[in-house]
Amino acid sequence: MTSLQSYVRGQWIAGSGDPVTLHDPATEAVLGDVRPGGIDHAVALHHARTVGGPALRAMTFVQRAEMLKAIASLLHERRDELIEISGRNGGNTRGDAKFDLDGASGTLAFYAQLGASLPAGNVLPDGSGTQLGRTPRFWGQHVLVPRPGVAVHINAFNFPAWGMGEKMACALLAGVPVIEKAGTPSAMLAHRIAQIVVESGKVPEGAFQFVAGSVSGMLDHLGPMDTVAFTGSSVTGALIRGNKNLVAKNVRVNIEADSINPAILGPDVESGTDTLEQFLANVAVDMTQKAGQKCTAVRRILVPQAMVAEVEESLIERLRAVRIGNPLDGDVRMGPVASKDQLRDVRAGIDRLAAVADVRLGGSAPMQDKGYFVSPTLLRARDAGAPVIHELEVFGPCATIVPYSGEVAAAIDLCNRGGGGLVASAYSDDRSFVEALVAGIAPWHGRVWLGSEKTQGQALGPGAVLPATIHGGPGRAGGGEELGGLRGLHPYLQRTAVQGDRAVVARSFGLETG
Amino acid sequence: MTSLQSYVRGQWIAGSGDPVTLHDPATEAVLGDVRPGGIDHAVALHHARTVGGPALRAMTFVQRAEMLKAIASLLHERRDELIEISGRNGGNTRGDAKFDLDGASGTLAFYAQLGASLPAGNVLPDGSGTQLGRTPRFWGQHVLVPRPGVAVHINAFNFPAWGMGEKMACALLAGVPVIEKAGTPSAMLAHRIAQIVVESGKVPEGAFQFVAGSVSGMLDHLGPMDTVAFTGSSVTGALIRGNKNLVAKNVRVNIEADSINPAILGPDVESGTDTLEQFLANVAVDMTQKAGQKCTAVRRILVPQAMVAEVEESLIERLRAVRIGNPLDGDVRMGPVASKDQLRDVRAGIDRLAAVADVRLGGSAPMQDKGYFVSPTLLRARDAGAPVIHELEVFGPCATIVPYSGEVAAAIDLCNRGGGGLVASAYSDDRSFVEALVAGIAPWHGRVWLGSEKTQGQALGPGAVLPATIHGGPGRAGGGEELGGLRGLHPYLQRTAVQGDRAVVARSFGLETG
Repeated sequence: MTSLQSYVRGQWIAGSGDPVTLHDPATEAVLGDVRPGGIDHAVALHHARTVGGPALRAMTFVQRAEMLKAIASLLHERRDELIEISGRNGGNTRGDAKFDLDGASGTLAFYAQLGASLPAGNVLPDGSGTQLGRTPRFWGQHVLVPRPGVAVHINAFNFPAWGMGEKMACALLAGVPVIEKAGTPSAMLAHRIAQIVVESGKVPEGAFQFVAGSVSGMLDHLGPMDTVAFTGSSVTGALIRGNKNLVAKNVRVNIEADSINPAILGPDVESGTDTLEQFLANVAVDMTQKAGQKCTAVRRILVPQAMVAEVEESLIERLRAVRIGNPLDGDVRMGPVASKDQLRDVRAGIDRLAAVADVRLGGSAPMQDKGYFVSPTLLRARDAGAPVIHELEVFGPCATIVPYSGEVAAAIDLCNRGGGGLVASAYSDDRSFVEALVAGIAPWHGRVWLGSEKTQGQALGPGAVLPATIHGGPGRAGGGEELGGLRGLHPYLQRTAVQGDRAVVARSFGLETG
Repeated sequence: MTSLQSYVRGQWIAGSGDPVTLHDPATEAVLGDVRPGGIDHAVALHHARTVGGPALRAMTFVQRAEMLKAIASLLHERRDELIEISGRNGGNTRGDAKFDLDGASGTLAFYAQLGASLPAGNVLPDGSGTQLGRTPRFWGQHVLVPRPGVAVHINAFNFPAWGMGEKMACALLAGVPVIEKAGTPSAMLAHRIAQIVVESGKVPEGAFQFVAGSVSGMLDHLGPMDTVAFTGSSVTGALIRGNKNLVAKNVRVNIEADSINPAILGPDVESGTDTLEQFLANVAVDMTQKAGQKCTAVRRILVPQAMVAEVEESLIERLRAVRIGNPLDGDVRMGPVASKDQLRDVRAGIDRLAAVADVRLGGSAPMQDKGYFVSPTLLRARDAGAPVIHELEVFGPCATIVPYSGEVAAAIDLCNRGGGGLVASAYSDDRSFVEALVAGIAPWHGRVWLGSEKTQGQALGPGAVLPATIHGGPGRAGGGEELGGLRGLHPYLQRTAVQGDRAVVARSFGLETG
C-alpha cells in the first residue's frame, strides 16, 4: 500500500500523522493513504522564494512558455497510464479522465502558445503609455512584473489534473514558483503527475513543489508577494479569505467556490428544434459527466411552464440511457462519486432538495452494495423560490427543474438568487430575450453561455472551462478569476505605474521607442 | 455650533450618540461636532440599491460622464468658499486646500472626459473577442458591466475633497451608487461638498448618500455586488478586510493604507545638477505640503553615503525657510496637523524614530502653546536597517535620511523593507542604475516615479496622484488599486465572458459587427 509522498526542497518526503485512506470509489478497495503532516511549511516557502523564484525569473516569458509546452507534451505521452489511475482513484470513466487530462495538457499548451507571443524579458506593458505632464516629455506606462513570492495552490479533488495544470500554467508562466496541494480523495493522480513533472527536469528546482497532505498551517507564513489560489467549498474558502495572517499582510487570495449554475430555456424554444436538442444534450452531459462533480455543472434547470413536461420526459429518457458502473469497464458512461464523504454529502443534499422538490428520477437511496454510486437524480421544484434550490450545491449527478413563467424578468430573478455563480447558460433564438437576460444576469455570473440554432455542433457545452475565457464568479462562487488568456497571469503579477522621462520609460519599460 | 448631518434616503438627518468635537487645528477653536449614530444602515443601502442604482444604470456611461462634469464645474465655482473651510477645519494653507480641491474637480473632470469617449450603453468590451470553437462561429467576448450594488467609500481625513471626489468619480461613472463616509477631523469640508452635490440636483436621488458619522455597522449588511473602498490605517484596513460578513459574501474590498514611501538618490547624482535640485525640492515639498499628511509623501530618503552631509544641509535649509502658522494667514506655507490625535501620534512616532535615528531638525517637542503644530522634522538613521524606519508611517512633516552604499542592490533591499508601498521615487541619470532599480522595486510599489535631468520642470512630484495612473500598492499599502484611467472603474464592474454565436455575441456585447 502506498502512502503518498510530498516533494519539498528537492526531496520526496513521507507524510506523518493520522492517515486518510484512499479508495477505489467503484469497489471501495483500499489503494493507499495520505498523511497530513511531515512538511515544514516555512522550509517549503523559503525554498520556493530563494531558489525556485529566482530561477524562474532568470528565464523570460518565452522560456517559461517552452517549459509549459514540454510539460504538456509529457502529460500527453503518459496519457494512458494517467487515465488508468484516474479511473481507479477517481471513479472516472475513460471519457471523464480524458476531460480532466486533456484539459490539463490543453491548458498548459494554450499558455505555452500565449507565452511564446509575449515580449522578450520579464516586463509586460499594461495598456498604452500616457502623457502625464504639460508636454509629452513626462510619461506614464503601466507594467506588469512577476511578484517575487510563492503561489500556493489548494486544488479540488474533482479535477486533479486540470485544476493543478491550469493553476500552475498561469503562475509558472508569470514567473512565480508553485506549491501544489492535491485534493485528498483523488490525490494519486495529482501525485503521479507531480512525479512526472519533477522527473522531467524541465522545471527549475524550487519552482514546483507538491504537498500530498495539509497546507493549512502554511497560510500563516505567507507575505505580501504571495498568492493563494483555492478551489473548493465556500466554507473553506471563507476560512482562507478570513485567515488572520492573510488579512494582516494583504496576501492575494483567488477563490473559486460553490456555484448553483442555472441553465435557462428561452420561451421561444419549441419541440424538435436544434436549440432544444442542445439544451437537453448539454444538461444531460453536465448531470452525468464526472458524475456531476464539476463546479460548472448545471444545478438549476429553468424551463417555461409550457415546456416542463416535455423537458422532464426527455431528460429522464436520456439519463436512463446512461450506463453506470465501474469506470474501468469500457461501456460505462458514469462512474461513482469520488469518496464516501462525497456520497454522504450528495445523498444528504438530495434529501434537502426533496423537501421542496419532487424527485422525478433517482433519489438518495443507495444504488449498489459496494462503491460510491449515486443514481442520476432529476427533481422538479414545487416552489421555484425555495432558497435551498438556489443556495445548495449538491456536488453529484443531480439537478432540479425550476419552472418559470417564460418572462425574462422572472428568469433573471431566479438566476441571480444563486448569489453569484460561475456560469449561466441560456438557450434561445429570440435576440431580445437573450440581450435582456444577459444584461440582467451578467453581473452575477463569471460566464454566460448562449446556445442557439447556429451553435449546434459548434462548441463544447457550458460546463467546459476554456483557457481563453475567465473561470470564476462573484459572491458565492468565491469572487475570484482564473484563466481568460493573459488575465490568468494577473494574480501572480504586480501592476506598477512607471512615471518619468518618456525616453526612459517608453524604451525601458513600455517596449516602444519614445 | 454645527452638528454635521448625514444625507440618507433623500433627507438630511441629525446624528446621535456621543459627539466628536471638530476643531480649527490652528487655534483649537471648537467649530462643531459629528455624532456617530442616527443612521439606519440597512435603509441607506436599500435606498441605494433600489433607487440610486437603477437610476444610474438607466443612464449610459456618456450620460454619467456629463454628470461628473457638472459636479466638477460646481466644485470649481465654489472654490473660494471651500478653500476657506479647508483652512479652518483642516489646517490647510491656501496651497494645500487647492491641492485637495483641484485634485477633486480635476479627477472628476478627467473621468468626465474619459466617460465621454466610452461606447454608448452600459456594456464595456474587455479586450478583443476570441474564437472558442473549431470554427469562428462560436465566439467569446469579455465584457464589463455595472454591478447592481452599492459602493461604500470610507474616506480619510487628509483629503476630504480629493479622496471623496476620486472614489465617487469612478463608482458613479461605472454606474454604482455611492455612500460616502467622511474622515471625522476634517468632515466639515466633505459635508459642504456633499451639500453642493445634493443641492445641484445633478446626481439622481439615491445615487449619492453621505454619512458624517460611523459606517462600521454598515459592513454587516453588504452583499456580493457591493464594494467597500477604504483609505486609512493598515490596522483599520485589516479590520475591514477581515470583517466576517465581507469574508462570507466575498464582498469586494479595495484598501489604500500605510506606505513608508522611499525616495532614492542615485549614486551618479552630483552637487549642482538639476537632478539633485529636483530631488531636494520634491522631498522638501512632500515633507511640508499638507504638513506631511499625504499617503504618498516621502518618509525614507535614501542617500549615498558620500552625499548625506550635503543633502542633509540643503534639506534643513529648505525646511527652515518654510513659514509655519495659521493657514488662513496668506504668507504661511505649512499649517498644523489635522487634529489633537494626529498631533499625539506624530509626536509619538518621532520619538520612536529618534530611538534609532538622530534628529537633525525639529523633533517631537511642542511647537506652540495653541494649535496642533509640528516642526518639520528631519532625522538621519544611525542603523539603516532598523525596522521602525521601514515599518512606521509617521503621518506628519517628518522623514528620515537613510544612508546607503550607493549600490543598486542595497537600495532595492532598503526600499522593499517597507513591505509594500504606494510610490517610490528615484533620481538618477544612470540608465543602468534606473533599470535595475525599477526591476527590483516595481513588484513592491504601485508607482515608481523617475526623476532625471530631463524631467526638471516637466511634472508634478511623486506625491501627486494623477487619475491616469494607478494609486495603491501591495502589502502594507493595502493591496488595492484605484484610478489608472479605466482601471479605476474595475472595482465597480463585473467582468463576464459571453460565449455563443459570433453574430449575437459580437453585435450585442462586443460592439463590433461579426
